[in-house]
This record gives sequence, structure tokens and C-alpha cells, in this order.
Amino acid sequence: MDLLNREFIQQLMDKSLHNDLFLGHFGLEKENARVDHEGKLALTPHPEAFGSKTENPYIQTDFSESQIEMITPSFGSIEETYRFMEALQDIVSLELKGEYLWPSSNPPILPEDEQIPIARMNDPLAVKYRHELADKYGRKKQLLSGIHYNFSFDERFLRKLHETFGHGEDYKDYKDSIYFKITRNLLRYRWLLIYLTGASPVFDKTYIEKCVSMGKSDDKMSYYFLNMNSLRNSACGYRNEKPLYVSYDSARDYVQDLNALIQQEELLSAREFYSPVRLKTAKGLNPLQELAEDGVAYLELRMIDLNPLHKIGISKDTMYFIHLFILFMLLKKDETFGTEEQKIADLNHDQAIVEGIEGSLNDSQDCRGTMKEMALTCIREMQEMVRLLHPQGEELLLILNREKEKILHPELGFAFRIKSDIQKSTYMKYHLAKAKAYAEESVKSGYRFAGYEDLELSTQLLLKAAVKRGITFKLIDRDENFVVLTKGNHKEYIKQATKTSLDSYSTVLIMENKIVTKEVLKERGIRVPDGDAFRSLKEAIAAYEKYDDKAIVIKPKSTNFGLGITIFNRGFSKEDYQKAFEMAFEHDRTVLLEEFMTGKEYRFLVMGDEVAGVLHRVPANVVGDGVHTIEQLVHEKNKDPLRGFGYKTPLENIQLGDAEEMFLKNHNHHWGEVPSLGQIIYLRENSNISTGGDSLDYTDDMPASYKALAVESAKAAGATFCGVDMMIDDLTSEASDFNYSVIEINFNPAIHIHCYPYKGKNRKADEKLLDLLFGEVNN
Amino acid sequence: MDLLNREFIQQLMDKSLHNDLFLGHFGLEKENARVDHEGKLALTPHPEAFGSKTENPYIQTDFSESQIEMITPSFGSIEETYRFMEALQDIVSLELKGEYLWPSSNPPILPEDEQIPIARMNDPLAVKYRHELADKYGRKKQLLSGIHYNFSFDERFLRKLHETFGHGEDYKDYKDSIYFKITRNLLRYRWLLIYLTGASPVFDKTYIEKCVSMGKSDDKMSYYFLNMNSLRNSACGYRNEKPLYVSYDSARDYVQDLNALIQQEELLSAREFYSPVRLKTAKGLNPLQELAEDGVAYLELRMIDLNPLHKIGISKDTMYFIHLFILFMLLKKDETFGTEEQKIADLNHDQAIVEGIEGSLNDSQDCRGTMKEMALTCIREMQEMVRLLHPQGEELLLILNREKEKILHPELGFAFRIKSDIQKSTYMKYHLAKAKAYAEESVKSGYRFAGYEDLELSTQLLLKAAVKRGITFKLIDRDENFVVLTKGNHKEYIKQATKTSLDSYSTVLIMENKIVTKEVLKERGIRVPDGDAFRSLKEAIAAYEKYDDKAIVIKPKSTNFGLGITIFNRGFSKEDYQKAFEMAFEHDRTVLLEEFMTGKEYRFLVMGDEVAGVLHRVPANVVGDGVHTIEQLVHEKNKDPLRGFGYKTPLENIQLGDAEEMFLKNHNHHWGEVPSLGQIIYLRENSNISTGGDSLDYTDDMPASYKALAVESAKAAGATFCGVDMMIDDLTSEASDFNYSVIEINFNPAIHIHCYPYKGKNRKADEKLLDLLFGEVNN
Repeated sequence: MDLLNREFIQQLMDKSLHNDLFLGHFGLEKENARVDHEGKLALTPHPEAFGSKTENPYIQTDFSESQIEMITPSFGSIEETYRFMEALQDIVSLELKGEYLWPSSNPPILPEDEQIPIARMNDPLAVKYRHELADKYGRKKQLLSGIHYNFSFDERFLRKLHETFGHGEDYKDYKDSIYFKITRNLLRYRWLLIYLTGASPVFDKTYIEKCVSMGKSDDKMSYYFLNMNSLRNSACGYRNEKPLYVSYDSARDYVQDLNALIQQEELLSAREFYSPVRLKTAKGLNPLQELAEDGVAYLELRMIDLNPLHKIGISKDTMYFIHLFILFMLLKKDETFGTEEQKIADLNHDQAIVEGIEGSLNDSQDCRGTMKEMALTCIREMQEMVRLLHPQGEELLLILNREKEKILHPELGFAFRIKSDIQKSTYMKYHLAKAKAYAEESVKSGYRFAGYEDLELSTQLLLKAAVKRGITFKLIDRDENFVVLTKGNHKEYIKQATKTSLDSYSTVLIMENKIVTKEVLKERGIRVPDGDAFRSLKEAIAAYEKYDDKAIVIKPKSTNFGLGITIFNRGFSKEDYQKAFEMAFEHDRTVLLEEFMTGKEYRFLVMGDEVAGVLHRVPANVVGDGVHTIEQLVHEKNKDPLRGFGYKTPLENIQLGDAEEMFLKNHNHHWGEVPSLGQIIYLRENSNISTGGDSLDYTDDMPASYKALAVESAKAAGATFCGVDMMIDDLTSEASDFNYSVIEINFNPAIHIHCYPYKGKNRKADEKLLDLLFGEVNN
Repeated sequence: MDLLNREFIQQLMDKSLHNDLFLGHFGLEKENARVDHEGKLALTPHPEAFGSKTENPYIQTDFSESQIEMITPSFGSIEETYRFMEALQDIVSLELKGEYLWPSSNPPILPEDEQIPIARMNDPLAVKYRHELADKYGRKKQLLSGIHYNFSFDERFLRKLHETFGHGEDYKDYKDSIYFKITRNLLRYRWLLIYLTGASPVFDKTYIEKCVSMGKSDDKMSYYFLNMNSLRNSACGYRNEKPLYVSYDSARDYVQDLNALIQQEELLSAREFYSPVRLKTAKGLNPLQELAEDGVAYLELRMIDLNPLHKIGISKDTMYFIHLFILFMLLKKDETFGTEEQKIADLNHDQAIVEGIEGSLNDSQDCRGTMKEMALTCIREMQEMVRLLHPQGEELLLILNREKEKILHPELGFAFRIKSDIQKSTYMKYHLAKAKAYAEESVKSGYRFAGYEDLELSTQLLLKAAVKRGITFKLIDRDENFVVLTKGNHKEYIKQATKTSLDSYSTVLIMENKIVTKEVLKERGIRVPDGDAFRSLKEAIAAYEKYDDKAIVIKPKSTNFGLGITIFNRGFSKEDYQKAFEMAFEHDRTVLLEEFMTGKEYRFLVMGDEVAGVLHRVPANVVGDGVHTIEQLVHEKNKDPLRGFGYKTPLENIQLGDAEEMFLKNHNHHWGEVPSLGQIIYLRENSNISTGGDSLDYTDDMPASYKALAVESAKAAGATFCGVDMMIDDLTSEASDFNYSVIEINFNPAIHIHCYPYKGKNRKADEKLLDLLFGEVNN
């Protein structure tokens, strides 16, 4: 059987259009019910962190307040779309306190119908519509969740198609004809797509009574229908009350028929037309009018179940397969698709769901034989399509082969595997375990933004926080971590997370210049280390009185092996001071005097008028347990998911390199040694995070007086975002005029280190950044 | 005769205090009457550009509205003080439209007394005080102008003196004793200082009638007294109505005596005590109280005449001499200085002024013989002082030698030379010629800030503009052109003139990044050149439709000698386009396509909401006159004071180098050629100012639509200060969607190029910068 339009394919190749055929824009929308730790539908409100339900373009509610809808932007590749949905799921999961995303299309444990919370909306029309749906279908049915797969062709490809194959019609009409052709074919062949993607075979006893009563159960807790792979796509699923038939011949006919159904009060609005494929417009405010005027912008495939076998409910393979299936529907010969054909398609749909594909196909024209035969033909033709048109299509051929295996071996299908696993456990345990495992995965990668791992961690966190509250973003210069965030008319251009419009250029220049920094800090009465450079002994001696009440270090400007360095405590004599300089001048013509800063160094992250976080860093180390060797302890410590290589993680692995080995040796340790319980073994002199150092959160332990000094330091430079490095003698006493010193203020402070410290709380610096840039959530 | 206190000097040397002796702080204050082009006192108001008379710390009025007072800050060197006064004079001169600074202490042509405008002040007390002075002394006398020379020792030196020589008194009392000792000696020996610095020998017939009637005249236009070198210091000058004697023994006695004189209504206030030396306090708000409480902060020598022989009224040599004279007064033995001694000092003062120094000295103690002998003794002793205490004092010894010459040869004195020159001309012509010559000098160096020539020209202009309106400045990091401007409580940190707090950091980052710049401009609907980089012919061909309606240039990424470059006008064929790429790909693996920008490039300086200036640059060139050779024309053009070497001037000299010679040769010209009248000979391909290019001001010629686009471009980036580079096809038509392109926006635009273009007006970008930072003058 030859389903492909070979002539069309040949023409595409002749005109070199086959490359652009595979271009397209992909988007995903999916719903998940929120559940508590027992798998009961969560009756809590939609988390405030996600901002306005209607204005957040990424995270909304659907019918029920308990149903979270996640929406990706449209991307030019499946890869990006997939990753973004993963990121959305991570973002949402991290915000659910003690709740989980229910991974199945079929609902969790439901309360009585009237207790299912309808989404609280500000718009009274939106509330009214939901109540009408609730009355018409029951709330339980509305809780069936699924995935919408959005697809459009590359605009240039469509225009070339129009130029090449058009018959004088205008571009809009030509484009519509393409999308309507695909829709007709998709509806006709959807039985195959549902067969291959169906993943909702079992449902809970709290689901709609009528369906439960018709179902079969092994444990009287969950129910199923024999061979049924998708409850959601079944008669017990999400469908119009009775079958509705409209013309798919053209946008005009389609709009006309739908308007008639609305006028006949068969439908509340066009939105209630639950066709498995929906023809979508660009704006989406007034779909039918827009369809008539502007035509189809993209296709929405609505029959895809949430697949509990995958974290985000759909695998990349499935996404690629659906794409190929859509292209196949374009390249397949066209057929009439009137009411009769639509009824047959519905029959095939139900048959595939309920009985599988062993039976024979209900069809009139080209599709004959058993469904299985037809399914295999389709796969074969799709493989042919890839081979002809996609020169690098090997991966795609493998994907098609795997789908073929599912046709040949029904036990490989999603629904079969899920049902079989549920039968070894329970419906509830199975899905809850999945939900918790996926939530755990999200926590582990909480610091990163899936799909944006090439960006700096601070930028990843900022973008995730933006997405969470519905602020859209665009990477203007990805290599530079340069983004623009947009909320309504408010745009913010941001580089490297903390380089923003809230700091003035002069503020940055003040911080960048050490001389100027000291100047503005001193002027504000903030203590900074004193210092001077001397070119003669005479000059140096003349400055004695300036420094004799301080601890100082005297050192040649360039020093080798610490030669010529003297450190003095307060109260040194002029004679000793002179001797120290004489010694230092033996090593260099210029000798530096610097105030010797005692105490520990702390990084204060100042954001606006407050300190968002305080960190202290300690060199790479392990703590003995009396059992493991130093080497083993390092390996153990490196298992922390926050640690990794190359600045892609908040902390770096401790290395087992020469520098560490030398350091151990110099301190009379070695790799094979077993430190005693609680013994701290350092592996580095320096405390940099980049060499495995630990970051310790001191935000709650830092006395208020030092925090006030940090804020003052930022204000001295006029800074909104600023990292203040302060040496502090003793945290048990408040700041005095002598016991601290600000050694640096930094204009591009990292925020991720305060969100993911080695020890301590996430200080939400990303959120505070956005609060300052855009106002707090819901403002 | 041995005037020096040798013992004291020996002790200074023993204690190594002699080095610090020469440290000090120097300040100058001077008044100049403003005159019109005929030498008549200007009756116009104090220029508004100088802001508030009372708040501008640098430029004020004195008694009369027509008298400008210029005040330097206190500097650590005579050099800096001198240069700053020169800068002040430049700043003031440039603001006087058709008026000049009268270079003599003696007034210009004066109207009747009551027509001399008293300075308009907001403070009613200040007005009252001036009217009281006018009534008491007459307005004409108040118009005598002079120089005040302010001096204080280095604080550390005084403290060391106190530690070494004090007798248990506190530091304030010790410091006062030093300054009072110097004051006593200065008053006693002031006859010598006045003899050596007096420079006001002749006065106009419009001066006080009584003085005119007593004077001698050669032309009945100007008058003089025989041998009198300083009218200002004479009985016809600026003196209290009758001699007043106070104690100079201590601050307490001095304050007590002055308070008594005020109570007896001999004086309106302490300010009216016209002593040639005034003991000044730090704040100066309530002098007598402050003197009693805080002591002397510095000495003010008030007897120095404006010297018309020098641009700023005083030479550097004179300033050094006065410094040495003050030190001499410290190191000289002390003498009692009661009323009797003060009367004798007054006698000597008058005698030196009126009769010169040939007569014998009125004195009681150590000073005997003729004044001339005594004067030579003083110089000798001062030379001894320098030799003993200043190891690098050769220059100072030369200065003292020159003063000695003036004693030996009175015809070398300032007054003698001035009078002799006046006698060859007229009082009016002589001084007006000087005034105009100095004004011309100020115009020539208008672009630079005397004493700050190491700074970038833009920063020099900004600082001068700040000084003009009384905004104080401090160089925080001189090498970096980093300054802080202060007006009241308002501080602005500024780097390189246009890096300010008015631009946000993100704005700068947007401009710094070419990709982001294009993005924000395009989003705002501003035309930018299109472009792409291709790595394969296929990619390039696919982009044909994107560019086929544009003029483009196709070029290998790296190109040698222009090989492989093709330029297309609009409407090229796909075949030609492909051929061009094929050719380009023969030279490099990456081929660039750029929209070809026609037209000329203009720099728009955007400041706030407006375009402050528009410039177009043309390559180094000369215009023939039919007489001179190209080489001669270059030399002639380079005489423009705006041209120089090494970016210290607004324009650079045209070079006679290999590059220019090669360029001439390639265009069939040579150095010796004589271009015809009006023929333009270019010497360079590039139009950079740094290679002798000309900057042409187009601010008035630029159609408003392009200016609006420049402002829009700045707004797209959110910029307050911004240099927009735009290619424009034709200035005779307004901007359309196609006839321009913004090729760059720059965040640190030079302002000096718009102030000192080769041709065109000064666009006052420096003033506009300050208007935006601090509000307009007088706001």
C-alpha cells in the first residue's frame, strides 16, 4: 500500500524544500493535578509564588484550583521544548510544599464532586464558564489531565510551498489548506497515535461512579477496562456530551459549522469543542473570528496522555514521533473527510483504545485489513519518508523502529507496562512513588535551569525565578549571559544576573576602582585597611606615627618566598619599624605597608536596603569518621549533587591532585590515612569554591551591626546590588570602630552561592533580585 | 647685621624639621574690575553663568557688581595655585562678552561715584554693609583691586614645632604664637614687600578728585605721584579712615582690641580693619570669636598689587618670593611691636611707596641705615636661610637675586616699568592692550584647564564648566579621570566626563554589546545595517531573499588587499549573488554579508532628550590658494592653536609622514605641488581626528528627523549620554525608512569635539552635561 504522495515528495526534493520541511516550532502544555503525600487531590490554593494565574504565561491553573498547567514557549527544536518543560516541572515541584505533581492523566483520590475546588479566577466570565463545565460534565471528568502538543511549520517553508505549489490563492488560504489537510489526516489516523501514546489504563475508585461500576478491579481500589490504554481518550474521558461533526474542508466552513453549533447551544463556546486536534490562531482571544481573518497559526494535538514513565509526562522520542506523524499526514495522500468519514474515525479511535489493534480497521478507502497491518504500513511509510527527505535521519529511523516494536509487541506499550506495574503494587502507590521520585529529581537539579546549563548559575537561577512568577525572558546574547526580562510593558536588560538598571554606571565605576572605593567608604565612616607604598626609608619612617597604633604588615612590593616580610602587632617601636623597612628595602625598591587585617572574611550580599545573605568560605576539607581514609572521604563528599566540575554546579569537587597531596604532606597527612571521628583534614590553603572550598551560610548568625555596615558600604557607592567582603574579628561581639574592616565591594556578586551553600539555607537571592527589579510577586 | 635667629635655625636642622618648613598651603584671591572695550567700568550685571555670587566658591563679586573676585582653593604648591588662578582667569574671560578684566589695581574709567554699581546681593546685611562702606570711603576707592596671598604651614610641621619648642602651652596657643610672630615681622618689614611688588603707579583722571588734584600728569588724562609705586597701598588707596593700632602680642589681645574698636564704632566690623596682613580662621563666619576659640588657620597678605605685566596679575616668581619672605619673618629674631613700632612701620610703608628706598629707615632697634641697605641685608639673609635649610634651593636663590637687582636698579621694578610704558602710550591704551592680549590668551587655551592638562580634554572641559558655576571638584583617581563634583549636599562621581550616575549599568552594557545594541534599536523601529556570517554556500544562497532588496557587500571574513569582495547595489540577481559568494569562499571558510551603508557618517551627541551637537569628520586635508605648496599649506593649517600633538588639543596636527606621502603619490600629488585656489587636497583615506582629520559642526544643518532618530536610539538603550553614529544618504531630505542607518551607539562620547570643532560653534556640551547632572545654572 502506498500512502505517500510520491509526486509531491519528488517536487519538494526538486525544489530543495525537503530540508526546510523538518523545521518547525514546537510547544508543550500539560496539566498535573496537585496531590498531598497520600495521593489525595490537594485542596490548597495555587501557590502564590507563581504570581497571577492569568498573567503568568508559563504556570497557570486549568479547570480546577488543584490543577497546575505548565506551558512552554514555542521553540525551534524539540530538544529545547522538552528541556523547558523539564525546567517548568522543576520550578513547580520545588515550590510545592509537601505536595506532588500527580504523574497520570487519570485523577488521584478525589473528594465528592462538589468538593473539587474550581479554579479561583478574578474574571467573573472565567468563573462562570468553569461552573457551566462543572454542571455539564461533572468536576471529576475535568480533572483528567493531559498534554497538548503544539506544532507549526517554519514560516519561510510555508511561503516557499505557497510560491511553488500555490494555485493563485493568497498565502493565508494556502497555509490554511496545509493545516486543514493535516488535521483531516490526523483525525483519520489518530487511532494509531492514541494506541502508541495512551498511558492511562487504570483509574481510582473515587472516579466517576458510572465508569467505576463498568470497570474491572483486582483490589477494589482501582479499576480498568480490559485492553483499554487511555481512559482519558475513552467514552469515560474528556469528550463532548455527544459527537459533533463539523467540516474540515476549509477555515471558512469550519468556522461556520462551529458557530452554528454554538448558536444551537450544543457548545458554550468554541473552547468547548473537544476535538483531538484543534486549529489554533496566533492571538487566541477570539479564536473563530481570528481563524476566519488570519488563518491557522499552529496545530494543537490534544490526545496525548501524561506518561507516568517519564518525569515530564512525555519522552523526547514520543515528541519526535509525533512530529514525524504530523509530517506524514502532510505527505500522505488526501482523502475526503465528511461526517461519515469522521464517524468511522471515531469508531477506529474507540476500537484502538478499548480493544487494541488486533481487530480490523473500519474504513472505506485506502485503509484496509487489520489495524495492526495498517499501523505497520504507516510506520514503514514514515521510514520511507525520512529516508527520502532527511539525509541525517538515522536517529529518527530508530525511533520509528521502536514504535514498530510496540505495534508488534503490545506488552511494550506504555499503558501495558503501567498497568502491569500497578498490578504488582497499587494504583496509588505506583503513581505516588513516581511523583516523589520525580520531585526528588527536581530538587537535585534545583540549582540549574534545564536547557540553559551553558549559562552561569546565577543567571540560570534568575531566569528560573522569573519563569516561576511569570516574567518572560529572552536571551539576547547567550554567551554573555545577557537577557531581557519582560513583564507587561516593563523590560529589564540584565547581564550576568546582577548587572542591572538598578545600579548606575558611576556606582559600578566606584566599585571597580580600589582607590575610589576606599575613598567613598572612608567618607562614610566605614573602616577600610590603611596602606601606603614607599620608595625610600625616609618616607617610610616619616609615616610611623600614622601606623603605630595598628597591626601592620611591611613587605617588598615583589616578594619571593615571603622574604623581607614583617608583621607587627599594635604598639611596635619605631626602631623595630625602621629595621623592618630596612630589611624589606633589601628586596625591592618599593616597600608596601598594609594594615594587617585579622579575623575571618565574610561575604555580605547586599540587595537594596538589606543583606540577603552572608557566607563564609573554608578551604576544601573532609571530616573524619574513624573508618574511612582521607581519599575515601573526599570521594564521599564529592557525591553531593551540588558538587561538580567546571562551575556548572554551586560547589566544585575536591580534587585529588598534586596541590592537595603536597598540602597534606606539608601537614603530615597522606591519602591513605584514616582521620579520627570529627577530625577536620584540610586539603588546601585557599578557600576558593573553585578548588573545592565549602560555603557556609552565616546569615542568621551575623550580628545586625555588621549587616548594617554592609548596607552602609553599598550605600556609600550608591549600589543596589553589591557583594561586600568584610574581615571580622569576632562574631560574638557587635561591630565597633576597630573590630572589622571592609576589604572589597563587588559590583557583580554571585547569587547562586547564597542559594545553594554547602551548609545553610537557600537565601532566595534570585527572588529578591526580581522583587527589586519588578516589585514583589503579585504586585 | 644678623637678622636670622641662628639658634632656632640650628635647632630646626638638628631636629630634621627644615624639610617640612618649606611645605605649606597656598591660596590666591584677586579682584579685577570688568571694563568695556573702551576701558570704562562695565555697568552690566555679574554674568549669570557664574551662578550664585555667594555660593560659587571660585568666582564672586566684591564690593561692586562690576568687580569680579577669583578665589583659588588652597593647594600644597605654588605651582598648582598659580595654575588654578590662571584657569579661573581663562574661565572668567571666556564668559565676558565684549568685556575685559582690567589688569591694574587702579580703577579704569569710572563714572560718578553714585553710578558705580554696588554688588547686588540677596542678603540684606551684605547690601547694608556695602552701602555703609560706600558712604564712608566713597565707591571709587572700593574699586581699587588687589591680590590676597594666603599661606599656612603644613599642619604636621606645626605640630612637630610644638612638640620640639613648645613650653607646655597647648597646640592652638603655640600655633597662634607662630603666626602672630610672623605677622608682627611682616607688618614691620612690609615696606620691602610693597616696594618689590607695587605695580599701581598711575591712575585715571576719573579717580577720586582729591587724589587727582594732588597728582602730576603729562597728558591730563592720567595722573601719578613722583616715585610712588602703589596708589592702592598709599594714603589715596584702600585704608582705614584713620590709623588704628591693636595688639599683635597674642590672639586674645588682638581680639580684645578689635572688639573695642568695633564697640567704639571706629569699625563697622572686623572685616573693615584693613590691615595689610590679616590673621584668618578656618571657617571665617565669625572671625573674632573663631580666632579666640580655634586660633589662626592661615595668614592673608593683602598688600599685593595686581601686576599688569602678568596675565593673572602675579608671577610665579613673586609668589615664591612672598613665601620665602614669610619664612624669613618666622626665622628672623622677634621684636616688640607696640603702637610706637606700628607707627614707625606705617611711616616706612608710606616712605617706600612715595619716595622709594633711597632714604633712611625710620626705626628704633635692629634696622638702621638706608632702606636700600636694609633691603639688601634682608635679601642676603633670605639667601642664607635658603642655603642653610633648603638643599635644592638653587631656583629660589635665583629668584632672590632677581629681587636684589630690583633693589639695586629701581628701573627694573614693576611700577617703574609700567609707568615708563604708560608714558609711551596712555594709561588707558596700555592697560586695555594688556587686557585684550590676556583675554586673547585665554581664548586660545579655552579648551584646556591650566594645571590639569594631564586629564582628558573632555574632563578638563567638564571641570572648567563646573568651576565656572561654582561646583567644586576633587580628583579621586587622576590617572583614570575619575572626579567627584559637589554642590551643597549633591555629589556626583564621574569618570571620563560622560560616565555618570545618569546612565544605568544595563544601559552601558547594552551599548557595549553590538548584538544587544542592534536588538534594542531594531525593536524601537530604528534602522540598523543587516548582516550575517555564512559558513557554507548553501546557507548563503538560502539567505538571498532576505537581502535582495538591499545594497550589500560580500566579503571573506579575513581579506587581503580586498580580494574576493563584491559590492552589490539593490536589485542584484541570484546568479550574481551566488557567484560573489563562490568567489569569496575561495578566500576564506567564513564569508560575511553586510548591508552596504551609503552616505556620510555623522556623530550625534545625545544629552538627555536632545541632540547637543552633530559632527561630521573629513580626512586630513588642505585647501589650495594657488600660491603655497601642499607642504606649506599643511604647516599653515597646523598653526591653528586647536591643533597639537598627542591628544592634548581638540585637533591633531596633520603629519608630513610616509602615510601622507604615499597617499599623495597614489593620487598623483606631491609635497611640492601648488594646488589651485579652492582645490582640496586630501592627505589621508581615514577621517580620524587623531590623524589630522577635520571635525565639522553640522548641528544647525541636520534635519530634525535625524536628530529625533538619534534621540530615539539613545532612548532605546535607555541612555542619557550617548554618541550615535549614523550613516545618512542626503541631508537635503528628511529621514525615511530607508535613507539612514544607525551603525553604532557609544556610551562614553567625547564632548570636547563638539565644543572645539574645526569649523562651527561651541555646542557647550560641557555645560549641558552639568545642567543634566545638577540642574541648570542658578537652579
